[in-house]
Amino acid sequence: MEHVDKLLIGGVVVTMNQNYDVFPDGAIAVRGNTIVAVGPRETITAAYTAAETLDCSGQIIMPGLINAHTHAPMTLLRGLADDLRLDVWLMGYMMPVEREFVSPEFCYYGTLLACAEMILSGTTCFADMYYHEGDIARATVEAGLRAVLGQTILKFPSPDAASYEESLAYTRQFIETWKGHPLITPAVAPHAPYTNTVETLQACTALAREYDVPLLTHFAETRLEVEESRREHDMAVVSWAERLGLLEAKVLAAHCVHIDTDEMRLLHNHGARVAHNPSSNLKLASGVAPVQEMLNRGLIVGIGTDGTASNNDLDMFDEIRLAAFVAKVATYDPTALPARTALAMATRMGAEALFLGDVTGSLEPGKRADVITLDHTPLHNTPRFQRDPDAIYSQIVYAAKSTDVTHVMVDGRWLMRDRQLLTIDTAALREIAADYARRIDAFLIAREGNVLSKLVAIGGLEQEESFEIQVKAHTADPGILDAVLSSKEVQIVRHTHYRQYDTYFLFNDDRQGRVRYREDDSINERDEVISVRSRLTYTMPTKEREFARAILLSRSQFIAPADRPLRFYREYFQPDIERTIEKERWRWHILYKGILFYINLDKLKEPAHDGYFLEIKSRTWSARDAEYKAEMATEIMSLLGITSEHTIRAEYLELATGR
Amino acid sequence: MEHVDKLLIGGVVVTMNQNYDVFPDGAIAVRGNTIVAVGPRETITAAYTAAETLDCSGQIIMPGLINAHTHAPMTLLRGLADDLRLDVWLMGYMMPVEREFVSPEFCYYGTLLACAEMILSGTTCFADMYYHEGDIARATVEAGLRAVLGQTILKFPSPDAASYEESLAYTRQFIETWKGHPLITPAVAPHAPYTNTVETLQACTALAREYDVPLLTHFAETRLEVEESRREHDMAVVSWAERLGLLEAKVLAAHCVHIDTDEMRLLHNHGARVAHNPSSNLKLASGVAPVQEMLNRGLIVGIGTDGTASNNDLDMFDEIRLAAFVAKVATYDPTALPARTALAMATRMGAEALFLGDVTGSLEPGKRADVITLDHTPLHNTPRFQRDPDAIYSQIVYAAKSTDVTHVMVDGRWLMRDRQLLTIDTAALREIAADYARRIDAFLIAREGNVLSKLVAIGGLEQEESFEIQVKAHTADPGILDAVLSSKEVQIVRHTHYRQYDTYFLFNDDRQGRVRYREDDSINERDEVISVRSRLTYTMPTKEREFARAILLSRSQFIAPADRPLRFYREYFQPDIERTIEKERWRWHILYKGILFYINLDKLKEPAHDGYFLEIKSRTWSARDAEYKAEMATEIMSLLGITSEHTIRAEYLELATGR
Repeated sequence: MEHVDKLLIGGVVVTMNQNYDVFPDGAIAVRGNTIVAVGPRETITAAYTAAETLDCSGQIIMPGLINAHTHAPMTLLRGLADDLRLDVWLMGYMMPVEREFVSPEFCYYGTLLACAEMILSGTTCFADMYYHEGDIARATVEAGLRAVLGQTILKFPSPDAASYEESLAYTRQFIETWKGHPLITPAVAPHAPYTNTVETLQACTALAREYDVPLLTHFAETRLEVEESRREHDMAVVSWAERLGLLEAKVLAAHCVHIDTDEMRLLHNHGARVAHNPSSNLKLASGVAPVQEMLNRGLIVGIGTDGTASNNDLDMFDEIRLAAFVAKVATYDPTALPARTALAMATRMGAEALFLGDVTGSLEPGKRADVITLDHTPLHNTPRFQRDPDAIYSQIVYAAKSTDVTHVMVDGRWLMRDRQLLTIDTAALREIAADYARRIDAFLIAREGNVLSKLVAIGGLEQEESFEIQVKAHTADPGILDAVLSSKEVQIVRHTHYRQYDTYFLFNDDRQGRVRYREDDSINERDEVISVRSRLTYTMPTKEREFARAILLSRSQFIAPADRPLRFYREYFQPDIERTIEKERWRWHILYKGILFYINLDKLKEPAHDGYFLEIKSRTWSARDAEYKAEMATEIMSLLGITSEHTIRAEYLELATGR
Repeated sequence: MEHVDKLLIGGVVVTMNQNYDVFPDGAIAVRGNTIVAVGPRETITAAYTAAETLDCSGQIIMPGLINAHTHAPMTLLRGLADDLRLDVWLMGYMMPVEREFVSPEFCYYGTLLACAEMILSGTTCFADMYYHEGDIARATVEAGLRAVLGQTILKFPSPDAASYEESLAYTRQFIETWKGHPLITPAVAPHAPYTNTVETLQACTALAREYDVPLLTHFAETRLEVEESRREHDMAVVSWAERLGLLEAKVLAAHCVHIDTDEMRLLHNHGARVAHNPSSNLKLASGVAPVQEMLNRGLIVGIGTDGTASNNDLDMFDEIRLAAFVAKVATYDPTALPARTALAMATRMGAEALFLGDVTGSLEPGKRADVITLDHTPLHNTPRFQRDPDAIYSQIVYAAKSTDVTHVMVDGRWLMRDRQLLTIDTAALREIAADYARRIDAFLIAREGNVLSKLVAIGGLEQEESFEIQVKAHTADPGILDAVLSSKEVQIVRHTHYRQYDTYFLFNDDRQGRVRYREDDSINERDEVISVRSRLTYTMPTKEREFARAILLSRSQFIAPADRPLRFYREYFQPDIERTIEKERWRWHILYKGILFYINLDKLKEPAHDGYFLEIKSRTWSARDAEYKAEMATEIMSLLGITSEHTIRAEYLELATGR
């Protein structure tokens, strides 16, 4: 008799191994963190004795479920805002709240709450993408779960980084800290191709390859994303990612709702994995991913809940059933994605999707002991048919509930027994969650009807590059431009002439930021108006940074088309103060040393002002790039013969109002 | 202070009344079976004292859920057969098992099991369509639930009736027995237009109108149903039902997956109600019903689980969430079917769908006390945001689980307290369910690979009319037909000439029935073969009935196109005996006194036989019609000068084999 630590005996052992072996009266033996034997009860009990033997009669013993895609700390935002237009949800609620509240503490407690919910519902391993992943790792280890944790990289400033350079540096450090941990696999998570730049995507790929860690991302979640990818890059999302070399990393791509056969082939050829999120894809009205076709083409597809802000729970039982359901209706074929395959996607194949196929996902000797048991006796599991060997999968997928989960073990350690959590103090967690909810409610109530919310509500809002470089000077003689425009360092890309009528909406409360309604009349060589365009620009009340003297480096702006009359916006925003500025603008898009700048030569008419203003401008997502461009802009000013002492800080609005 | 029987105090009272009033610290007062007051806790406790006061702090107090469509006794078939083609599922599993097992006892116990599951998951009222509805009513009353129970009418013989005439008679009696019961509303349930005849649909409508009871049916569940309706009636399903007058009854139509704008208008104009069944429609790959458009057009739509054979549970929480989800993805609009509306469909609007809008569905003074409470404290309901007044609905619909239901009251009576069922002995039920499962498993194993299963598996199988009328005679002189064919009582519709090559597959086990493979060569006037058709006919081993002497009255047959060679079918069915028959057939479709008959004049070639055989045939779904047609057939024989002593009983197969 060999000695082991734990024996789980009796119950139906559903191994989810390659043969789909099921032992109707089975047992498993666990030593340390590893499964050493699986088989019929008699065989196992004849061969092993154990320090602890647990009778699982009347239960199903199966591998723990694998949640292939979530954003764990968002449990703290569950039910915050639902049934909204995607842009309203994201820009009106999620992003402002995340900017304000997401901290290391938020991520730590949010993850603990998520882990508690996952353990209660039978999940033993998950893939995460969020901020402050080091704190998420700390909470996950404390809870005792297994996870692949992807630190998010965005071109935008994020709750844990003012620039993507900071994010990349943090990610490297995060990987160094956690690589090799028995429960945690660190990963790089560029949020999506459209929220990254070519540079950040390539830096992420290089980092993932350097450390041989997975790269987690979102691909083709919405139709809009695909349309924009085709417009901008003339190719579909996955094709674009492949072109950039992203698929050279070990990619786990969430969603893939709107991908075609060629993209499936690309993913398959590069060994990329897919995380299917049916609840989220339905709730956000994204669409239904072609999962059956992916599987037919040999792709490895896991199932994920996505974050609780778009689900609104972490219940993998709901998710597996829904995966089976939507695959059927999407193909009008009731035999699509049968229960056994759906369960495999959440166990063995799910582990493969997380590049943990050797470690977990099935009950097999040598794998880690990630095991759950399911109570077979609740009435909703009654009766039990035996004729069809697949009936056990049908029962688990179509009838069982997450609340049937009785015991949970991860890495050979009990995390739950008889539905009692053993590693997490939920009473304290509830208090903390309630406190966050109160503060977030108060924050949102305070900003109810604020300018950004109103802008989001009218639609079409887009965030501009995070960093604006702007340097300005006054000159009596516009002719000083000629030398620069004819310089061999400068290539003129485009020249335009406008009359601009700006109306600024200002508010007594500075935290509201400000809105500019601009009418741009484009003027041809015969001084005729050839087109008119109106748009809104919202400038956030965030700190602006200066680089050198009088060079603005950072200003968060959002733009939106203004397809309604000025009168509408005036009534809608109800500004406390209104200012108008009219000017004539001659504009050049130039490449200076190969870098794009805008030169504006402006003649102020209202308020009237002598002479001309010269502006040199550029925008970028990168902090490092912003500093580089600021230096270039100073060089251009020098070419104009203007030294930094002569540049001016004031904006036109300040000239007009003194504000 | 007024005295009442029960006070439920504390907790968030979600009334689901027209104003969607919510009382964050509320209470309700119940006297007898009726709600007498709903409001803030302070107001109610100041006005009422009660024999029983229940503290519901930390819970949500809300109306019980209404399951607008199910087949309750099918709980006993849960998980029997899943992930199958619809015809295989229906004809290969459901129908044979129902034919064998569905009895008053089955319906009684199956309903008790369903009621137990419904109470545990917060359902207090349901609409049912099945067989032996009297026994279903008995179980429902014993469990204490409210229900609209529709007795099924089919053109086929059903588990509770050999003919539809029996069904109609039983339904009338069922209504007489149960009309006016405080919990039970009896109803007429013609299964669907395509499974009924014009006559049965009109008889059902008349019956529903005579007793002013609802008419429950299935409309436009699958694309195939709609295609066939268009082919057969040249109009869509609802339009056809309207044409027949069906919508003059109080109709509650399940599914309506494939209906267009005109059909919605028809339903709305006639005050018909719809039961939406998202799980079933996804699992059977039927499609997604256009629910948002129905609601926009003012239709009253409830939510149903359908039977557990196609779901596989009776969990309305799953169903409500899924209804909200699928409406969003179907319209690519995340604001479609918001949580509050989805919950209304399962409460107040659900009651209206069952024509019980005055009785139940919301917490309002004067309505019956059908109340559930939901535990707010499980982690999956954490945290709780208050800012948005709709957050409470979002929490119930997107995060809460059926297992959060704590207490259930119907008609003022407690059915569950602290998750303990008070009216149903589940231990006994489990035993009974397990026993049925064992017997059904054994039955299906015994018939595994039987002929009908094999036929179902190859597809295209259709059931023929239940009653076949056949009378046959031998004659040396085919000329005797002339007098009949030229009679003024007879109108010839069509005349054809075939050479028929029949191969019979016979089995030593008579219970297998028999299969005929027939090649029909159609012959023109120049004796040339102009077309060839092959098909399979399966004759069930059911009892045949005779009417008068030598007139066959009943034979259950299925037909399927035979699109593969005879060799294939021989290997596939592996008959024990094979017989071939060849004959020349001249066939007339005639109307005799306006009724369709077939006259066959057959010359047997293999086995060769002197003279000719004459057959007069007809088919019908109706037992009464069969007897009438049998008399007509005898009259036609008399016109031929053949008296009943000269008719013969034997089939060609018997002439060939002696079997």
